[in-house]
Amino acid sequence: MKKLINNPADVVKEELQGVALAHGDQVRVHFDPAYVVRVDAPVVGKVGIVSGGGSGHEPMHGGFVGYGMLDAACPGAVFTSPTPDQMLEATKAVDGGAGVLHIVKNYTGDILNFEMAAELAMAEGIEVESVVIDDDVAVQNSLWTAGRRGVGATVLAEKICGAAAEAGKSLKEVAELCRKVNGWGRSMGMALTSCTVPHAGQPTFELPEDEMEIGIGIHGEPGRTRMALKSADEITELLALPVIQDLPFEKGDRVIAMVNGMGGTPLIELYIVYRKLAEICEAHGITIARSLVGNYITSLEMAGCSITLLKADDELLGYWDAPVKTPGLRWGM
Amino acid sequence: MKKLINNPADVVKEELQGVALAHGDQVRVHFDPAYVVRVDAPVVGKVGIVSGGGSGHEPMHGGFVGYGMLDAACPGAVFTSPTPDQMLEATKAVDGGAGVLHIVKNYTGDILNFEMAAELAMAEGIEVESVVIDDDVAVQNSLWTAGRRGVGATVLAEKICGAAAEAGKSLKEVAELCRKVNGWGRSMGMALTSCTVPHAGQPTFELPEDEMEIGIGIHGEPGRTRMALKSADEITELLALPVIQDLPFEKGDRVIAMVNGMGGTPLIELYIVYRKLAEICEAHGITIARSLVGNYITSLEMAGCSITLLKADDELLGYWDAPVKTPGLRWGM
Repeated sequence: MKKLINNPADVVKEELQGVALAHGDQVRVHFDPAYVVRVDAPVVGKVGIVSGGGSGHEPMHGGFVGYGMLDAACPGAVFTSPTPDQMLEATKAVDGGAGVLHIVKNYTGDILNFEMAAELAMAEGIEVESVVIDDDVAVQNSLWTAGRRGVGATVLAEKICGAAAEAGKSLKEVAELCRKVNGWGRSMGMALTSCTVPHAGQPTFELPEDEMEIGIGIHGEPGRTRMALKSADEITELLALPVIQDLPFEKGDRVIAMVNGMGGTPLIELYIVYRKLAEICEAHGITIARSLVGNYITSLEMAGCSITLLKADDELLGYWDAPVKTPGLRWGM
Repeated sequence: MKKLINNPADVVKEELQGVALAHGDQVRVHFDPAYVVRVDAPVVGKVGIVSGGGSGHEPMHGGFVGYGMLDAACPGAVFTSPTPDQMLEATKAVDGGAGVLHIVKNYTGDILNFEMAAELAMAEGIEVESVVIDDDVAVQNSLWTAGRRGVGATVLAEKICGAAAEAGKSLKEVAELCRKVNGWGRSMGMALTSCTVPHAGQPTFELPEDEMEIGIGIHGEPGRTRMALKSADEITELLALPVIQDLPFEKGDRVIAMVNGMGGTPLIELYIVYRKLAEICEAHGITIARSLVGNYITSLEMAGCSITLLKADDELLGYWDAPVKTPGLRWGM
């Protein structure tokens, strides 16, 4: 296992210490229980937004804490759900009196723990709404998942809902917006290589040198199919067409398009994928109104990519364009 | 070779097509000869800044074209210098009447070609200044290099000089500032794994599963030493101490600190390195005034990292904080 780590048991703690040191002007990190929170939390009168999940997907979620996006993020161990006490404490820390939205990716552990945290928070008088993201079209059920997995649309939901909360929308409105993003967002990913969870010390799965996995999950969960390695253009079609057909995205639709790297894929390759995705969208009469190319929801050092399309109207584009200032996504300020 | 590419010969062309499609609001891409240029170039009355080098180091340099940073970037084939005609055409495209600065990393091909381009541009009446970046403390000479290699300080120089040009400084002033950044910046990198140039199809070098290379070059050139894999804390010391001792950085110094990923290393590991770097700086009485953690000057999918420290006074920090809007680095707008 070749990694820039010390004791595998300390990976998340030490990473969070690094985040706190590098971004102390933007976020604070609370330990025991662990969560990353805006320096200015709670923002009085603003809906708070909390997300979280297993670590290993950086910059998601901790890197999306800041003005215009998340108020707090709860990092679990690598590829392991955070605990209800993390979520409860984060919820309390960001409650500015307007309620708190939980954005939850659809994995069984995350669902159960966020539900428990929401109940505990509500018992303490905090209004909580929860929205589950399940945008991955690859498989219907999966390891650790009943129903579809939550992947790339989570990043877009966090940006868009963060902007709406900043604009003073109510908890019900921000939750409704989050459901709209989930309803209109679809994703699919693929892997060229596996990845190694530090405390496991061995690759999560094996992938022969001449094969790839289409529809991979962000924890290395099985996808739709393994097949011989293909060209970037063919791979992009294998991801984009199921995404387009699922919603379906139709002629005349405008979209926010994300080409996301799994962690070990260089940017040069992601732009080659984006080029083909743009061609496919154009051929379908779909207009890419905004785009995002880079590493946003990763799987440690896995090589591969995912594609997310989000149907976007003026409301979503307006919130997308609004200023954001987080370690992982920043513009307008 | 597992990569998201089509024909290896088309990698750079197709990547640039992707960049043009994704960032058409910020940059234009010119082909034959290839360069990436600000949409609003030339900016009349402003010093133009051109850099370039082999591809495979993305987001450098093409991802740093935009307001407050580069006016144009010339991408060569992967790990291969761009040609003088690319540099000449880029120089002409960004000449707004106040002269053009060439920021050149110290590799023999880049040096020779930028020199020729500068001569040709000057023959056409464009004032050109060139500054060579050679901040890598690992080795004195190297493959393709007489003297030290130019690495991470290039990113910082492009940001700082870009801000100065935007502020209306003259060509001589911007060039002088660039020399100051180079004089005050020091870097060193390491590799956990090799990388594969697409048209070569084989790893550039071999690195056994239990070894790493300290002082690696960004093209996989040999570094100082190979040794058994060590912990992140030990690796950070092996990089940071030679960097600190070289300038030397001294008690009371303020610095801009960059922990840069080589392309295949997840962000979670870079923050673990940053944590130790911050500890080392503190122990030396060095204050990290600003930081940058992420993939900025990469080597395809190489796993590893580099550390750059730049001694910073109020002038450099002021330019660092100034607004920048490029695909790869953005804040304040």
